Amino acid sequence: MAERIVDPHRDPAVAAALGRLGTDGATLTIDGLPVTELAERFGTPAYLFSARVLQQRVLMARSTLGDRVRLLWSIKANPSLALTRILAMAGTGAEIASLGELQIALAAGHPAAALRFAGPGKTDHELANALAAGLGGFHVESLDELEALAALAAARGTVAPIALRVNLPQAAAGSRLRMSGRAARFGIDADDVPMVLARVRARESLRLVGLHTYGGTQSFAAEAFVAQAQRLAEAAAAWERAADIRLTEIDVGGGFGVPTYCGDPEFDVTVAGQGLRRVLEAHDRHDRTWFVELGRWLVAPAGVYLTRVVRCRQSGGQQFVVLDGGLHHCAAAAGVGTVLRRPPLLVHATALQTDAREVVAIGGPLCTPADQFAEAVAMPPLRTGDLVAVLNAGAYGLTFSPTGFLSHPTPPEVLVEYGKARVIRDRGTAADALLRQQP
Amino acid sequence: MAERIVDPHRDPAVAAALGRLGTDGATLTIDGLPVTELAERFGTPAYLFSARVLQQRVLMARSTLGDRVRLLWSIKANPSLALTRILAMAGTGAEIASLGELQIALAAGHPAAALRFAGPGKTDHELANALAAGLGGFHVESLDELEALAALAAARGTVAPIALRVNLPQAAAGSRLRMSGRAARFGIDADDVPMVLARVRARESLRLVGLHTYGGTQSFAAEAFVAQAQRLAEAAAAWERAADIRLTEIDVGGGFGVPTYCGDPEFDVTVAGQGLRRVLEAHDRHDRTWFVELGRWLVAPAGVYLTRVVRCRQSGGQQFVVLDGGLHHCAAAAGVGTVLRRPPLLVHATALQTDAREVVAIGGPLCTPADQFAEAVAMPPLRTGDLVAVLNAGAYGLTFSPTGFLSHPTPPEVLVEYGKARVIRDRGTAADALLRQQP
Repeated sequence: MAERIVDPHRDPAVAAALGRLGTDGATLTIDGLPVTELAERFGTPAYLFSARVLQQRVLMARSTLGDRVRLLWSIKANPSLALTRILAMAGTGAEIASLGELQIALAAGHPAAALRFAGPGKTDHELANALAAGLGGFHVESLDELEALAALAAARGTVAPIALRVNLPQAAAGSRLRMSGRAARFGIDADDVPMVLARVRARESLRLVGLHTYGGTQSFAAEAFVAQAQRLAEAAAAWERAADIRLTEIDVGGGFGVPTYCGDPEFDVTVAGQGLRRVLEAHDRHDRTWFVELGRWLVAPAGVYLTRVVRCRQSGGQQFVVLDGGLHHCAAAAGVGTVLRRPPLLVHATALQTDAREVVAIGGPLCTPADQFAEAVAMPPLRTGDLVAVLNAGAYGLTFSPTGFLSHPTPPEVLVEYGKARVIRDRGTAADALLRQQP
Repeated sequence: MAERIVDPHRDPAVAAALGRLGTDGATLTIDGLPVTELAERFGTPAYLFSARVLQQRVLMARSTLGDRVRLLWSIKANPSLALTRILAMAGTGAEIASLGELQIALAAGHPAAALRFAGPGKTDHELANALAAGLGGFHVESLDELEALAALAAARGTVAPIALRVNLPQAAAGSRLRMSGRAARFGIDADDVPMVLARVRARESLRLVGLHTYGGTQSFAAEAFVAQAQRLAEAAAAWERAADIRLTEIDVGGGFGVPTYCGDPEFDVTVAGQGLRRVLEAHDRHDRTWFVELGRWLVAPAGVYLTRVVRCRQSGGQQFVVLDGGLHHCAAAAGVGTVLRRPPLLVHATALQTDAREVVAIGGPLCTPADQFAEAVAMPPLRTGDLVAVLNAGAYGLTFSPTGFLSHPTPPEVLVEYGKARVIRDRGTAADALLRQQP
């Protein structure tokens, strides 16, 4: 019985994902390897990644943003050692937000100088360790952090390279991007920057290299991204003149969106690239490096969360399909509200030759109504063993999920690279539930 | 400078928690040990648990529900080996939902016969392992699962003890509890039970012991719980007569609520207990065991998530306090919507002698606006090093959180038992981010 595929929501994001990952007509493939075979070989549930798609996203970002822009990989989007290695080999830098991410970046081959440390709550312990590692830069979020870093660097007899994270004033009219211009959890208010610059100058253990801003994640407004870059570049020019300084690193943020729910648009990276090139032409200098931070946009399309149907059951005239994976591995795709927020799904049904359709709810094995991927979709009858894949699942997947909830083993991660599949994160075991515990 | 405590929301749940856990006037104590000292000794962020409060909850449940009711500990609420050991020593049974939870239950000293296996997506692998362990019972959720279990038990030459999880018809008018009476993800529709009972009878490898139902979690409607128990008892009587069977185990569920956000009421366990006693008087038999499943209600009040202020910053005239813990450890307490869903907080401020008050947002170190515990509370000025505690945090805490998000180390869990504090879950390390990974 040939495997066949169904897109229950008939969404453009599914067609786009199939186009990127590939299909042999009867099934989704990852770089030519059918997911049916990968499911047999590695078991389910599992995350599958395409190295080729990840590399293509890097190329696409580079060709669109231009060669004056250096990419920073936001490891938080997927702290995978293997994926981070691919990005290091492709020549990106990386943005880290913890000492765990620092270890991943270094183990993956990123030189410490190519790393930037971000986040509003870096502890003294974290700052000291990052200083010791010779980190390329610190994105400083507050005066409080600035003074702590200055003291730690002075104590080590070193100089910390810093960029100020700036909370820019109000976004341009018409921007869809949620910006600041109000009290914000992140960054130094633009009005306070001159005062902070004076403070930096007074600290011999700090070396100001530039500015950083970040408008928000999962943005689909390329124009707003460009407007933000423009404002940061203009602010940089004004502060350079006023304080007689050189700002050699300008990090304009990122947050490019990826369709995560049906109906989400594609982020128009061409508009972003063309706009950014115009900003750069007006504000570029030979001694200046421009950074764009990308996480989700690079890696989400490269990943698939693959599950298998465990049980099918009827209740109140509706069919409920229970998968072997769910919320605990792929929280972003699950929820009580999956009528409204529908993740792009692909179903491999063995019984597709029938014309019958039934209303199906598709969810995971957890004892909570929130463990649901689709609420009511018309599907051919599903059977135990059929496959259900969440697409565009490569970012904020496993590590954004409550993996310990109900103490199921964590799924393996499988990378397809140069036509070969291998495990890049081992499947967990039931005994993991006892790890680190004492009675 | 004496430590002093502030309840930013002035909520009754905070006063109740202080009453249970204790205070020495200047600070919160866990069974007499000040959290300031525990923070020094074990570091922050950390989860702290009181064995005494947990034991008191068991006694309170027993004395209220009566001695005909056997308690089942829902391990999913907190899969802690040490807390599960305390409950095993107190004589509860346990309800498991995975092989990981099975390992915890057995390691904690629960005999396999005292365990019940619940969940809509038990795989054949899980069922086979639970059979091999000699589990006391399986809560069967569907015909599909029934047949799978029958085949597995037959293949092992054993007999599986089962209870049918029943999806009861509509709740009584006025019930606040979200019930079934409609298509549901869980359980066998009441209308289908006679057919399923006939199927059980036809399978020699299955032994029907009883019925199970579960109305929903975090319920504050004790009357609805009683009404559900009443309906299950009546249904049991009707099915016993119709099919000439004996149902010796009736599990009426649980889901008793605990104030998790300010304004939440206390679940009226006295009403639940008195009502359940009336139901039991009408339907009890010498050969019948009644079960109530409790997870959150037992353990939430026994736990505190303790964090420390890392940075304080100003933006747009508002004070932002950044903690060393947050969403990644205590997801239920965090969110963008902390204006509406305010977890009960307790703040230990060193500067309380001042009358100054400022509007403060309190959140964690993650690079997301969702990492917030309080949005805008009037507080005395906070300083780096001050402590912030989330109360009633002992259930669905660490393991309901995306612990891998941003790759920070997991916090330790500390148990205070008989006046002594010790680590029951080791703090993670930065190197954990590389665990199981291959480049």
